[in-house]
Amino acid sequence: MTKPNITSHDAATLETAPTRYVEGRGIRFAYRRLGPATGTPLVLLQHFSGNIDAWDPAVVNALATDRPVIAFDNAGVGRSTGQTPDNVAAMALDAVAFIDLLGLSEVDLLGFSLGGCVAQQIAAEHARLVRKLILVGTAPKGGEQHLLAVLQQAFSQTDAPDPRLPLFFTNSSASRSSGLAFLERTKVRKDDRDTDNGSAVTDPQAKALITWCDTPDPGHAILRAIRQPVLVVSGSHDTMLPASNAYAMFKELSNAQLVLYPDSGHGALFQYHATFVSHVRTFLDAQDAAA
Amino acid sequence: MTKPNITSHDAATLETAPTRYVEGRGIRFAYRRLGPATGTPLVLLQHFSGNIDAWDPAVVNALATDRPVIAFDNAGVGRSTGQTPDNVAAMALDAVAFIDLLGLSEVDLLGFSLGGCVAQQIAAEHARLVRKLILVGTAPKGGEQHLLAVLQQAFSQTDAPDPRLPLFFTNSSASRSSGLAFLERTKVRKDDRDTDNGSAVTDPQAKALITWCDTPDPGHAILRAIRQPVLVVSGSHDTMLPASNAYAMFKELSNAQLVLYPDSGHGALFQYHATFVSHVRTFLDAQDAAA
Repeated sequence: MTKPNITSHDAATLETAPTRYVEGRGIRFAYRRLGPATGTPLVLLQHFSGNIDAWDPAVVNALATDRPVIAFDNAGVGRSTGQTPDNVAAMALDAVAFIDLLGLSEVDLLGFSLGGCVAQQIAAEHARLVRKLILVGTAPKGGEQHLLAVLQQAFSQTDAPDPRLPLFFTNSSASRSSGLAFLERTKVRKDDRDTDNGSAVTDPQAKALITWCDTPDPGHAILRAIRQPVLVVSGSHDTMLPASNAYAMFKELSNAQLVLYPDSGHGALFQYHATFVSHVRTFLDAQDAAA
Repeated sequence: MTKPNITSHDAATLETAPTRYVEGRGIRFAYRRLGPATGTPLVLLQHFSGNIDAWDPAVVNALATDRPVIAFDNAGVGRSTGQTPDNVAAMALDAVAFIDLLGLSEVDLLGFSLGGCVAQQIAAEHARLVRKLILVGTAPKGGEQHLLAVLQQAFSQTDAPDPRLPLFFTNSSASRSSGLAFLERTKVRKDDRDTDNGSAVTDPQAKALITWCDTPDPGHAILRAIRQPVLVVSGSHDTMLPASNAYAMFKELSNAQLVLYPDSGHGALFQYHATFVSHVRTFLDAQDAAA
C-alpha cells in the first residue's frame, strides 16, 4: 500500500493538479486533491460514465478555495484498477475503501447522479464517516428514471458536439450556451488527462443505476437511515432523473434542504456553477441550517 | 406630498433607524430605510398582522449591509394611515403607490406570506418596476391554505409567549429555540416602535389572504405573467401555507429557483436567518442563475 501525503497543500487546480494514486484492497485508485490541507475534505462521487476530467473546473476549483476537495475514479473507472461493480452497494464499499486508504476519518460527500446513489448508500451506513451530504441530479432507491430512452435519444443526435449537451442541458439558448461553456472548461487540461470509459465501465454502471431505481426500498429505509444534514439539488427539467425525485427525497429525509434551479437539466450544477458553489458553501459552513 | 431624502445613507439598523413618513394619494406611509444609498432597493412586504417591527433584525440588517432595504407599513397597517383593503389587488396598488412616492423606478421585492401574494400581483403587473422577486412562505392565487384552523389553534395556546411561536416554528426543540431567539430579536427596539395592529387591519387582511387562496386562477395567469427571476422559499412544515405551494409555484413560474428548509414552519426565514440571507444575496447578485 502506498502512503498518500494528505497533509500537503495543493495550490493546483483540477486542470493542473497531478493525478495521484493510492493502492489497497487490490485496487489502485486514481485521484486528484485540491485546496487547503485542513478542513473537512469534500469527496466527489461522479456520474455514470464520467471520469475525473468530467468534473467542471468552475465548480471544483471554486469549492477548493476554502476546503480540501478530492475527485477520484472509483474501482474500474478511468485510471483506477479493479472491476466496476454492477450495483450501488458494491460501489459504496469501494468508495469507502478509497476514503479509508487516504486516512480520512470524516468527510463531506458530493454525489452527482449515479454518484448520488452511492453517496446515499455510504451516508446511510456510515454515520460517523460522513458529516454532510450533497445530492445532485440523483434519485432515491426505487426512484424515477428514464435513462435508456434519454441516453438513446442523446446518442442519436450525431450533430451534437458531445452527448452531454443534450443530456445535461435544456434546449433553451441560455442553457445550451452554458453547456458549451462547460464542455470547453472540461477540455482545458491537456496533459495527464484521465482515461475515457468504455463498456466495461458503462455497462455495469448503467445496470447499477437502473437497478437502484427499479428496486423498491420499503419505508424509504435508506433515506430514513441518513441522519446527516443533506443538500438536495436538481435541475427543473432533468430528463433522466426528474426533479420530482429531489422533492421526494427532501420530504423523506429527516434533515434536508432542497434547491431546484430553473430552465436546467441533469447538469444544473454546471449551468449555474457560481450559484451552486455558493449554495454548497452556505450549506457546508452553516451553523444555523440543519447543521 | 412630502419629499423623501432617498439618497442619504442610513448606517442605522432596523432597531435604531428612525421611522420616516412619505405622503401621497391620501395615505401617509410609515417606513424605515437601511443600507447604502446606491443599489437596487429591496422592498419588504410584510405578513398578515405584522408591522415594521415584526421583521427579524437578523435578516433585515444582514441584507442591508450591501443593498438598500426598505421596510414599510402598507395602507392602514401600523402607523400608516388609510384603510387596509380586503383584497390583494388593492394592497398591490397601495404598495406601488408607496414605491412611486419614494421615487424608485426599479426595486427587488421580498414578500412574506400575505406579502408574497401582494408581491406576485405587483410583479405580474409591473415588469419594469420589479427586477427580481423573493417569495417566502406564500401561496399562488388558488393555492392551498389552512389559515383559520391554524390561527385558531395558535391563539388557543395561551401558555405560548407569542402566537408566532406555534405559528412560525415547529415543535422540535431546535425550531422552538430559534423561535424564542427570533422573538427576542424583535423586542430589542424600545423607542419609536411601530403600532400593533387591531381587527381593522387583521380582519380585511385575513379576508384578502383567504380570498386569494380560494379564488382559482385559470391557467395560473398571475404566475405565468411573472417573467422576472424568482426565488421561492418555504419551510418544510408550514402549517398555514404548505410547502407544496412553493413547489407548485416553482413549476409554473418561467424562471424560478426553489429553496426549502428542513424542520421549519411559516417562519423558516427567521429560523435559518443566516442561510436565508446567504440564499437571498446569492440570488439577487447572481449573474448566472436566472439573472
